[in-house]
Amino acid sequence: MYAVPIARLIEEFAKMPGIGKRTAERLAYYVLKLPKDEVAEFAKVLMSAKEKITFCPVCQSLTETVPCALCSDAQRDSSVICVVEKPKDVIKIEKTREFKGLYHVLHGVISPMDGIGPEDIRLKELLHRIQDGSVREVIMATNPNLEGETTAMYVAKLLKPFDVTVTRLAHGIPVGGDLEYADVVTLTRALEGRHEIN
Amino acid sequence: MYAVPIARLIEEFAKMPGIGKRTAERLAYYVLKLPKDEVAEFAKVLMSAKEKITFCPVCQSLTETVPCALCSDAQRDSSVICVVEKPKDVIKIEKTREFKGLYHVLHGVISPMDGIGPEDIRLKELLHRIQDGSVREVIMATNPNLEGETTAMYVAKLLKPFDVTVTRLAHGIPVGGDLEYADVVTLTRALEGRHEIN
Repeated sequence: MYAVPIARLIEEFAKMPGIGKRTAERLAYYVLKLPKDEVAEFAKVLMSAKEKITFCPVCQSLTETVPCALCSDAQRDSSVICVVEKPKDVIKIEKTREFKGLYHVLHGVISPMDGIGPEDIRLKELLHRIQDGSVREVIMATNPNLEGETTAMYVAKLLKPFDVTVTRLAHGIPVGGDLEYADVVTLTRALEGRHEIN
Repeated sequence: MYAVPIARLIEEFAKMPGIGKRTAERLAYYVLKLPKDEVAEFAKVLMSAKEKITFCPVCQSLTETVPCALCSDAQRDSSVICVVEKPKDVIKIEKTREFKGLYHVLHGVISPMDGIGPEDIRLKELLHRIQDGSVREVIMATNPNLEGETTAMYVAKLLKPFDVTVTRLAHGIPVGGDLEYADVVTLTRALEGRHEIN
């Protein structure tokens, strides 16, 4: 029933995570009612973000510079790597001001139910960072749920041959919850109380 | 905490209706993880929809052709105009196959609470269509809620000087509901049982 350009626009919105058909229609209608220069600006911002932002070749987080600001900061303790699921988790942990080491973003977790295996997340890149022996601790800050725990256990096993201690954030974070929703105090406690994975 | 291109992208998504800060972050992250050609395609679809789709100068609905397919269809009964709030409502009524007249899209309803007066919706354009005396009936198919009823009453009053009957969709649609969620049968009943506004 829709004209092709509208149908295509709805389709594009509907591809996005958490956006259903009805929301996609609402967003498309919003775009069509916008002044033309604002739509052009939106299209430009989309392309600009995609062109300027890349994955840091070291920590795999999103960055404008290569390597990212954190990875190229000589003040940070490069002997400790905090492993997180997504770029936003880096920002969340930075807000605690508790952690002075570097990060590694996996861009996901091992989840056999969703068909995501170890090779689908950035573990190869983590392993590569451990090779030269300068890292003494890897803090697993994946979420305290089934997939996060599985991934933490997997990394502990993966790094066993190396002289590196793999630790886990303490259960200050409510079990079954999401790192993204933790408050700064809870997250600080979790960092302080981290324990080794046997 | 975000790099400027990411912050700008989040900002653009957050401007959209019903999209909060957290959803905007999720959508921005989705875009950054897409292959570059898919982002380019999305930007192109946005611009293309905005460039190709305009408001029909007659009925004010969204269209690729000027005037729209419905307004230029000689088979339609041009003596009856069905007035709706938004372009999607046209599609919904077309699905009943009950209505053979033309449409008029107001792009909103009179809502003093939201600061939307008669001059903010396409009533001037409706009035213009009535002037030549060829329209004998205007069916008010605005939603059966406070704003929709107010708008229907306003139009009835506005068209009093003209030789035109202003009718209202029957209460087949649940009062307080939204036209968008009505099923085809209910909407057909509502069309059949329409009554004049006194």
